[in-house]
Amino acid sequence: MLDLKGILEKARPSKDESSVLSSTSEEILSRIKSYCSSNSISAEPMVVGSLSKGTNLSGSDIDIFVVFSKDYSRQDLERLGLKIGHECLPGSKEKYAEHPYVSGYANGIKIDIVPCFKHSADERLISSVDRTPLHTEFIRNNLTDEQKDEVRLLKLFLKSAGIYGSEVRVQGFSGYVCELLVYHLGSFTGAVEWLSTIKGKATLGDVSAIDSSSPLVIVDPTDMNRNAAAAISENSYYTAIVTSRCYLDSPDESYFILPESQGKSAYRERGTEMFLITVKKPDMVDDIIYSQALRLEKMVCNVSSDSGFKVFGTHMIVNGNIEILIEVDAQYLPAFKTHMGPPVISENALDFLKKWEKDPRTLRGPYISGDRLYVEVANENRHFPEVLISGLSRKNIGKHLNPLKDSIKISRINHGDELEILSLYYGRRVCRSHAS
Amino acid sequence: MLDLKGILEKARPSKDESSVLSSTSEEILSRIKSYCSSNSISAEPMVVGSLSKGTNLSGSDIDIFVVFSKDYSRQDLERLGLKIGHECLPGSKEKYAEHPYVSGYANGIKIDIVPCFKHSADERLISSVDRTPLHTEFIRNNLTDEQKDEVRLLKLFLKSAGIYGSEVRVQGFSGYVCELLVYHLGSFTGAVEWLSTIKGKATLGDVSAIDSSSPLVIVDPTDMNRNAAAAISENSYYTAIVTSRCYLDSPDESYFILPESQGKSAYRERGTEMFLITVKKPDMVDDIIYSQALRLEKMVCNVSSDSGFKVFGTHMIVNGNIEILIEVDAQYLPAFKTHMGPPVISENALDFLKKWEKDPRTLRGPYISGDRLYVEVANENRHFPEVLISGLSRKNIGKHLNPLKDSIKISRINHGDELEILSLYYGRRVCRSHAS
Repeated sequence: MLDLKGILEKARPSKDESSVLSSTSEEILSRIKSYCSSNSISAEPMVVGSLSKGTNLSGSDIDIFVVFSKDYSRQDLERLGLKIGHECLPGSKEKYAEHPYVSGYANGIKIDIVPCFKHSADERLISSVDRTPLHTEFIRNNLTDEQKDEVRLLKLFLKSAGIYGSEVRVQGFSGYVCELLVYHLGSFTGAVEWLSTIKGKATLGDVSAIDSSSPLVIVDPTDMNRNAAAAISENSYYTAIVTSRCYLDSPDESYFILPESQGKSAYRERGTEMFLITVKKPDMVDDIIYSQALRLEKMVCNVSSDSGFKVFGTHMIVNGNIEILIEVDAQYLPAFKTHMGPPVISENALDFLKKWEKDPRTLRGPYISGDRLYVEVANENRHFPEVLISGLSRKNIGKHLNPLKDSIKISRINHGDELEILSLYYGRRVCRSHAS
Repeated sequence: MLDLKGILEKARPSKDESSVLSSTSEEILSRIKSYCSSNSISAEPMVVGSLSKGTNLSGSDIDIFVVFSKDYSRQDLERLGLKIGHECLPGSKEKYAEHPYVSGYANGIKIDIVPCFKHSADERLISSVDRTPLHTEFIRNNLTDEQKDEVRLLKLFLKSAGIYGSEVRVQGFSGYVCELLVYHLGSFTGAVEWLSTIKGKATLGDVSAIDSSSPLVIVDPTDMNRNAAAAISENSYYTAIVTSRCYLDSPDESYFILPESQGKSAYRERGTEMFLITVKKPDMVDDIIYSQALRLEKMVCNVSSDSGFKVFGTHMIVNGNIEILIEVDAQYLPAFKTHMGPPVISENALDFLKKWEKDPRTLRGPYISGDRLYVEVANENRHFPEVLISGLSRKNIGKHLNPLKDSIKISRINHGDELEILSLYYGRRVCRSHAS
């Protein structure tokens, strides 16, 4: 019998950590309050996120929202929000989500200070960041302390599987989704049992107001039109399902241990070629970049295999740039590709023959194999980077990426290079905590 | 308007050639007759083949059959047949079809002397060679002189397309099939028009006694159970159809000009790898060897592509050995192959995970892509010859070839090597006389 209580003790912050979290957040809140009052700013700071909801894992950040009256313009909110952040968290850096915000450290704890507008659940929201206080309030009011610990177990379980967190590079289960799973299913085990039985699509809550093609729909109780699980990728979704099935089949502590980065050790001689495609990250919110980058990844894969390369896999990350790794069979294509023509007895067999017999690109044929015509046509480009660039030049790679086409860089990389994207690619594994 | 009469003048032996053919065959016949009578052999020589039927092309051979009484045993027929041949055609060599025979030259003309048994059309035949005199008789009695010239045009047309001759390396239209086509369809143009309209299968004659899966069935009027077109390969069949369509679309003299061997000139840098598989030719008749060699060719192709090589083409010839050429993408496979596992939500997803997580051959994964599981498994062999030998060792390559498995030789060859099989492979082309 697995000792979930013992695991929980490690997942939950210790008393010492809790008291530092508590004193640090009180300290920052009081700095902000005093700054606002001295400067006649009508805004109220509040701790949000997992800490405020009592569902935080050991080692979590502090998220503080500064809730502005709706009398402020968006521009003023952003300007004043940054100012408050810099004053009250010295040494912090500016970041950008839906509004700009600051991020820094105090007492060794990472702290984000984010401005937002005040809203109630029945109002149409101005931005999605502004929903966070509503989520905090909902969870505080609707989960028992025991259930909050169940949320911690679920978070740790998903984190161990590499699918906790809604940030674009994970595209996993957000803290709020974990909370809603426990809210609906009662406990960690209830949530995992539910996940393990999913066949195809699944929903939680009254989905009547949601028109979604996502396989997983979890209705946001603070906004019945919103799917709180929309950001979960197909891979994360299926990883959750299969990991839950594995866990229930034979539960053990390894499902709650975070994997170590496999780094370079995962590399073995593979007899393939690796290329890295780099595109400057356009200046826009991550969600949009990510969906376009995913499309580009798919297109890179399709152009490569349509051109005649065997594609073994791709991986995509968004950091300062969009980076796409692709593993293919060779650096160069053969001198020709084989076109399959029509069946010999078909109406257009003669047209095919006439066209290709005269075409200067024909290297062999047209010839017959079985009941069809074939011809071998010279490949215009043969080196992978040229083939890919030429293929992409004819494609629509998305509104925001099209203007950056000319800046796409493709370089051959070595299997043993020390690159984050390589170690993520090599490290792909279901139930990764079991990896030896 | 194409001058078919002018073309016929070149196809038909000149008066000089005809008189040499005639005097030479008379000379050999009289030698055989006199030898048989001096040695009390009850056998009658006769000229068979196209010369005897008046459908011979310029430059054809003389085929002489020595027809033995059925009182002889097969063994005696073979022994005496060779003896007669050597005595009457000095310097000739022994060859082997259904019976052994001799082949040599007289007056610069190639002559075959072949022993056979005497038969009538309503008897069950002992061997297929023995049918030849019946065919000769049928054509002599049923074609007009004008139709014999039409046969010559048809032969030249098919020869130009590379599909005239029933020998196993051509697997094309035999002289007898050409004669039957003109017999049924009246003329060269009638035959070509008929061929051009074929959609899928086609038959000529009363096929009620024939159970054949061949796409083309031409009933042998001397044996209603026999398909005279059985030896025509799929490739030759479809080549005939498409060449007929091309010719009728725009007839010109090039359809009657024999292609020159393309030889080494057809070679261009292809960016591929070529391997030659050689197996000793087993001691048996060509037809059986050929069908087993065709099966082996298909198996070589399937094992290679199932193992992960991209196959661009194969070519097979039977000479002293069975030779199979295969063109593939690389000398070596990658270090791994990717196995697709079951969908994540399927019953057996867990079994797949358990199996491959522990397997020492697993190089990466199991991982999720889309809604399925995948795993990368180390390739046991990577060099083409080893992969192929190991794959073939697990297959049944046919009764007569199985014992020769250990003697299969695989060598890498260069694109520019001077090999007959390479130039045949490079030279593949529909309507080859149009090749520039």
